[in-house]
Amino acid sequence: MLVLGMMSGTSADGIDAALVRISGAPPSLSVKLEGHYHARFPARVRQAILRLANGSATTTAEISQLNFLLGEQLARAALEACVRWRLPLGKLELIGSHGQTIYHQGAGSRFLGARRVASTLQIGEPAIIAARTGVTTIGDFRPADMAAGGQGAPLVPFVDYLLYRNRKLGRVALNIGGIANVTLIPAGASVENVLAFDTGPGNMLIDALVSAISRGRKAFDADARIGLRGRAIRPLLEEMLRHRYLRQAPPKTAGREQFGQEYAQELLDWAKKRRARPEDLVRTVTIFTALSIADAFRRFIFPRAHVNELIVAGGGAKNPLLMAQLGAALPGIEIVGSARFGVPAEAKEAFAFAILAYESFHGRANNLPSATGAKHPAILGKLVHGHAR
Amino acid sequence: MLVLGMMSGTSADGIDAALVRISGAPPSLSVKLEGHYHARFPARVRQAILRLANGSATTTAEISQLNFLLGEQLARAALEACVRWRLPLGKLELIGSHGQTIYHQGAGSRFLGARRVASTLQIGEPAIIAARTGVTTIGDFRPADMAAGGQGAPLVPFVDYLLYRNRKLGRVALNIGGIANVTLIPAGASVENVLAFDTGPGNMLIDALVSAISRGRKAFDADARIGLRGRAIRPLLEEMLRHRYLRQAPPKTAGREQFGQEYAQELLDWAKKRRARPEDLVRTVTIFTALSIADAFRRFIFPRAHVNELIVAGGGAKNPLLMAQLGAALPGIEIVGSARFGVPAEAKEAFAFAILAYESFHGRANNLPSATGAKHPAILGKLVHGHAR
Repeated sequence: MLVLGMMSGTSADGIDAALVRISGAPPSLSVKLEGHYHARFPARVRQAILRLANGSATTTAEISQLNFLLGEQLARAALEACVRWRLPLGKLELIGSHGQTIYHQGAGSRFLGARRVASTLQIGEPAIIAARTGVTTIGDFRPADMAAGGQGAPLVPFVDYLLYRNRKLGRVALNIGGIANVTLIPAGASVENVLAFDTGPGNMLIDALVSAISRGRKAFDADARIGLRGRAIRPLLEEMLRHRYLRQAPPKTAGREQFGQEYAQELLDWAKKRRARPEDLVRTVTIFTALSIADAFRRFIFPRAHVNELIVAGGGAKNPLLMAQLGAALPGIEIVGSARFGVPAEAKEAFAFAILAYESFHGRANNLPSATGAKHPAILGKLVHGHAR
Repeated sequence: MLVLGMMSGTSADGIDAALVRISGAPPSLSVKLEGHYHARFPARVRQAILRLANGSATTTAEISQLNFLLGEQLARAALEACVRWRLPLGKLELIGSHGQTIYHQGAGSRFLGARRVASTLQIGEPAIIAARTGVTTIGDFRPADMAAGGQGAPLVPFVDYLLYRNRKLGRVALNIGGIANVTLIPAGASVENVLAFDTGPGNMLIDALVSAISRGRKAFDADARIGLRGRAIRPLLEEMLRHRYLRQAPPKTAGREQFGQEYAQELLDWAKKRRARPEDLVRTVTIFTALSIADAFRRFIFPRAHVNELIVAGGGAKNPLLMAQLGAALPGIEIVGSARFGVPAEAKEAFAFAILAYESFHGRANNLPSATGAKHPAILGKLVHGHAR
């Protein structure tokens, strides 16, 4: 079955699409990446997403319109990708679309008289994707896990488990997107032994600082050029490492609530007051990102299982400063790119949502209760029929 | 197949649930209403819905949380209804949930650089309903029609067509909910000959005025007690009948955008300035509602087909002043309640969404392009799997 997975991450820079050939069923699922495509959002669309995701005031009209507009963007990305791959649409059998998260609250809080309401909101209307492509589309994966009592995240660890479990090797899959998350798959693990959680920021803080410092001209620190020029600001680094989130026990999820614009602004204010150099600030935050990941290993992973390999994916895997700091902080663990398993770093999540959609389509539960905290397995996603045209 | 349909209308007073036994396939679909249940929203939930639906400023957090909270309310209504009917959950095979519309823009407008974006937004998370009941749930019916180029409304006419088509009789189905809508099914019609559109306000304006006048103590004009005491204000009635919406040719949809709080406030201001009596204002608006429906018959229905019967459903069918005015304005047409066809007035829409869900579940298109303006048929809704518990 040829399945297209699509993802737009917290950085909202655009849409990743991954074409995956999938057959069989777990435990003998066979998957092969056939193509990867990236489409950028128009600048004003990205700005609108980030504004909403950062909690600015809005209206029902704006959210509704943006949901449909992003549906069109996702559909266009799918169509463009198929042209690029010379794949006739009729050969595409299923689309799995994560959409764009604009709100995520994993833990319940009081709301309109109800004691504990938790929720998540992804936009990018799947019905538009199904109509434009004619392909059956599964979207909106997170609510079903939250309905089962989970935090609705992380979802990719289920796919890590399917792909990386090994009888003899303990492995950790690390994805460094806007947020960084890890999946521990101990040697010989069954699904109950898998541990997965967000370690904290991935590229989110680095990107926010680089964007602010360059007045929007740069979206990220390409090849760590800025960070590699700077020097770490020790007092700031130490203060950051005392962030409450790092100590919190898994399952846990992070997002803009903890590491978004507000926190980035605090850092910028700190730096301004002390006349710190921009490159020093970027280096400090890059090192913080690496050390927050390593910290999670020491606190929550090493006490549970022996780790032989760390398999890295996500845009952050291309930041040499981040990777060097991570390697130094985790001696004795072999760090390998996910490409070695056929998954290029930047398509990891899109790839995962193709596989999650395939499992949903076949009516099989595909959340990981040990990772999300869900009380029971659930079949994630909502299915919209494609149309014979 | 036992199917539960659920609906919360624009008045947001609560949830209607209809249990329908359905078998066969069109044109020989067999349906039977087995039960009806109504659950009221808590006052603060209703207030929040109305505030959002009226376009007040909000946040992504509020919309996301309200989506999940309404999901819980819908799930609870489904569970309560099954207890009331002494129906074991395991016997319920499918749920169709319309959800609560908080935004609907049938016609496209410029948005973030895109030329024409139209959209609709229903909340009341279907994944929560599926998880709490264990029953496969189809929700979110409108986007697929809009993705096909339609206005996403009206959807009930497809069901009217299935239920009321007759070889010899021309029929109009009229539903008076918050908004009033009609479906013309000419004698011997096939699906292409069906015309359906919103005529304008149903109970929406009457309810808004009664609520304002009673300072929130009354939600609607029970038995037209207020309206029957008043006298029509002719100049106001004539001005209202010049409303642009009435002249607009179908397909067309109405909502709070035209007949919501803003318009109600204009009427209240008008009345205050001229010291009109509240009962006169309520009577005038009730008559306007009846005449706006009759006006639609004269402009758009009578030129197309002979009408033998008018089949009325919705809360407005219980307003004797509204029905009397309507009868007087449409001489020669027999007005019958939908109850005669086994559909009680107040369960009409919930009943319809059970049938729409049944059709979607079987992979059959269930929009009415002639009613919505869609360019092609579409299978409406998004399917969420129920779980074996």
